[in-house]
Amino acid sequence: MPLTANNPKRETWIDVPENSDFPIQNIPFGVFLTRDDIITIGTRIGDTAIDLAALHQLGYFKGIDLTDDIFLQDSLNDFIADGRKTWRLVRNRISDIFLKGNHELQTNRAHCSKILFKLSEIEMQLPVDVGDYTDFYASKEHATNVGSLFRDPENALLPNWLRIPIGYHGRSSSIIPSGTPVRRPVGQMKPGEDGVPGFGPSKLLDFELEMAFITTAANDLGKRVDISEAEDYIFGLVQFNDWSARDIQAWEYVPLGPFLGKSFASTISPWIVTLDALEPFRTDGPTQDPEPLPYLEQHGKMNFDINLQVGIKPEDGEETVVANSNFKYMYWSMAQQLTHHTVNGCNVRSGDMMGSGTISGPTKDSYGSMLELTWRGQNPIKLSDGTERKFINDGDTVIMRAHCEKDGLRIGFGECDGKVLPAIL
Amino acid sequence: MPLTANNPKRETWIDVPENSDFPIQNIPFGVFLTRDDIITIGTRIGDTAIDLAALHQLGYFKGIDLTDDIFLQDSLNDFIADGRKTWRLVRNRISDIFLKGNHELQTNRAHCSKILFKLSEIEMQLPVDVGDYTDFYASKEHATNVGSLFRDPENALLPNWLRIPIGYHGRSSSIIPSGTPVRRPVGQMKPGEDGVPGFGPSKLLDFELEMAFITTAANDLGKRVDISEAEDYIFGLVQFNDWSARDIQAWEYVPLGPFLGKSFASTISPWIVTLDALEPFRTDGPTQDPEPLPYLEQHGKMNFDINLQVGIKPEDGEETVVANSNFKYMYWSMAQQLTHHTVNGCNVRSGDMMGSGTISGPTKDSYGSMLELTWRGQNPIKLSDGTERKFINDGDTVIMRAHCEKDGLRIGFGECDGKVLPAIL
Repeated sequence: MPLTANNPKRETWIDVPENSDFPIQNIPFGVFLTRDDIITIGTRIGDTAIDLAALHQLGYFKGIDLTDDIFLQDSLNDFIADGRKTWRLVRNRISDIFLKGNHELQTNRAHCSKILFKLSEIEMQLPVDVGDYTDFYASKEHATNVGSLFRDPENALLPNWLRIPIGYHGRSSSIIPSGTPVRRPVGQMKPGEDGVPGFGPSKLLDFELEMAFITTAANDLGKRVDISEAEDYIFGLVQFNDWSARDIQAWEYVPLGPFLGKSFASTISPWIVTLDALEPFRTDGPTQDPEPLPYLEQHGKMNFDINLQVGIKPEDGEETVVANSNFKYMYWSMAQQLTHHTVNGCNVRSGDMMGSGTISGPTKDSYGSMLELTWRGQNPIKLSDGTERKFINDGDTVIMRAHCEKDGLRIGFGECDGKVLPAIL
Repeated sequence: MPLTANNPKRETWIDVPENSDFPIQNIPFGVFLTRDDIITIGTRIGDTAIDLAALHQLGYFKGIDLTDDIFLQDSLNDFIADGRKTWRLVRNRISDIFLKGNHELQTNRAHCSKILFKLSEIEMQLPVDVGDYTDFYASKEHATNVGSLFRDPENALLPNWLRIPIGYHGRSSSIIPSGTPVRRPVGQMKPGEDGVPGFGPSKLLDFELEMAFITTAANDLGKRVDISEAEDYIFGLVQFNDWSARDIQAWEYVPLGPFLGKSFASTISPWIVTLDALEPFRTDGPTQDPEPLPYLEQHGKMNFDINLQVGIKPEDGEETVVANSNFKYMYWSMAQQLTHHTVNGCNVRSGDMMGSGTISGPTKDSYGSMLELTWRGQNPIKLSDGTERKFINDGDTVIMRAHCEKDGLRIGFGECDGKVLPAIL
């Protein structure tokens, strides 16, 4: 099916501010509360939110095989389960409805009043009910930095890292949409000289700059996904801040991996940008050496060129950008991650989320965590208000951004922010 | 509220076979498909399954505040969310309805035909939609055995183990009810001399003898649960086989923990036995030395005396019992696990599942995995058909059992079985 919605020449009758993340070529999917306190599935063009349940009810999706209540839901799981063909039909249709020159909806004031909302009138929710959330560790630069910091700079990468897209299971319940405050976690830390573990608020609160993809149902338990089909099961991407408490993590993680050092909060951007919308931004990934085992062999442009940025805004100060990275640095592609995840027969469901792991680039200003940026606190970062940060302070808002840009077309992810509140003792 | 349903003198007008796991003092909760292919929530007395949706519809729960469709669901999540007071009212009422001498239902043939099923007429389903599944590592004997096998027998326990109920996030999607076959997983294994990882069916497929508890919603994100209240949020327990592929696990698990070595299947017994029904079987846990930090301090009888057993039944042979253990050996109690899980503000929802980790006892025949029982294959186990096992073969059914017994009262968990099918290459 042609991705007509991707045509860069398309313009819309909706007002789109300059440099918006949401031109008519984006058409992301999300869930929001409307001004009437109704929960609905929607999309966004410019700064206008569009109620897809209302569009559907008013007949604008005629001819597409959709259940009556598919958009009148509190999550996208069922729509995502409908599969790629349906996503494309719907996205193309939305693009047609809002195309400059198509007056059908534009001139129908009654319909517009039911379908279109200002951003100030809605409240974004989590877009999916995440069944299982997996976090990978797929940036070679990040794994190398962490290995250098905590083990041996000469042998920073563990022997399995170049063979396996290393990943672990994360906590679904504490995934929150952008804007939700993050409470500084309390926990145990490494013992001091008296041998008794420390206990209290984390002193080393960090962000992790990540992207995450949302899947449709890919396989039955016991079957696996072939790498040539893996991308068919990726609905789209969100930006993702995998908040981490380094001191809690350091004391707990051997031998079973990170647990409470991560599970207190994971922030995602609320609009899922479809893999289709990102198609123009495909790019080569890093050379994989040694060659992956056959089940992970993938050819062509496996990666996506997505500019990533992190800023820190103190309670009463201006934002300072502290990192610029790119999703293209990922060593293991999303298709390789998904394929590996199912090689043992593990079933992937509609609404599952798979994080990339921290995305660090090759230069010191492209590292995706304070741990790396300040090299474990050795080189504090100066903010524009004159204060310094080794890690994240109470009152700081961590702001992440992600967007693609090519030949004048910009597709972005919107907000992925979280403000840190003081711990409750 | 008095636990009248626990009264050991109570007898029922339903036929209960000798040594049944399900006397009228049990009253577990589960989900099943009826002969009419309707999914419903039910309980079980002896070998009779009881349709709670039908009981409710026919007015037997009058006076208890329940929504009309609370039992006409494909999971217990909503009922569990109703909280402990409601669970107790319902369990006591069921006990009254089936009490010997109460003829109200017994003499109503039309009602009985709608409410009562033979086990052969129903098909057990997963009892809950597990939002998040966490697995702990709470048996000291197990952690010591694993530490001895893979690290240093002199320093078998890692420094954090005696301080923290170590746990990690598991995979929810591959939790299956007893009776579902288990496909031998395929995956990467440690490289041989050529440096290239092995790839193929796991050669070291193992069981892990565990129990797991199911929670109700315990806390909002950012808040934590006090240990004095933790048990209020435990609805009940199931038996749990945390299938493990030791060779896949060994190659992948550093540094982020077990992943594909576990996520291919996790078998649970389909009836949730309430914590209330286990009340008579409370017992002291092991002495905790060093003393836990204050937030984990718990007094009184923290553990439960539940006999555990594992058998292996070859494709065409008889079962051989290979292990006898007990849930009371757990070093960290369920209340301590739940409390620790929330100390960082991580929110626990209705239907979450928390596994104990492998439960090994002090003697060599009480170890809860083949890894320990055969000491990594060094001491194969002889089965009654003359064959030997280092790990689990294709065609083997692993059978787990769990029951409490005291003063003539027996409360058990029923079946927790899984047959291993050959890998698909």
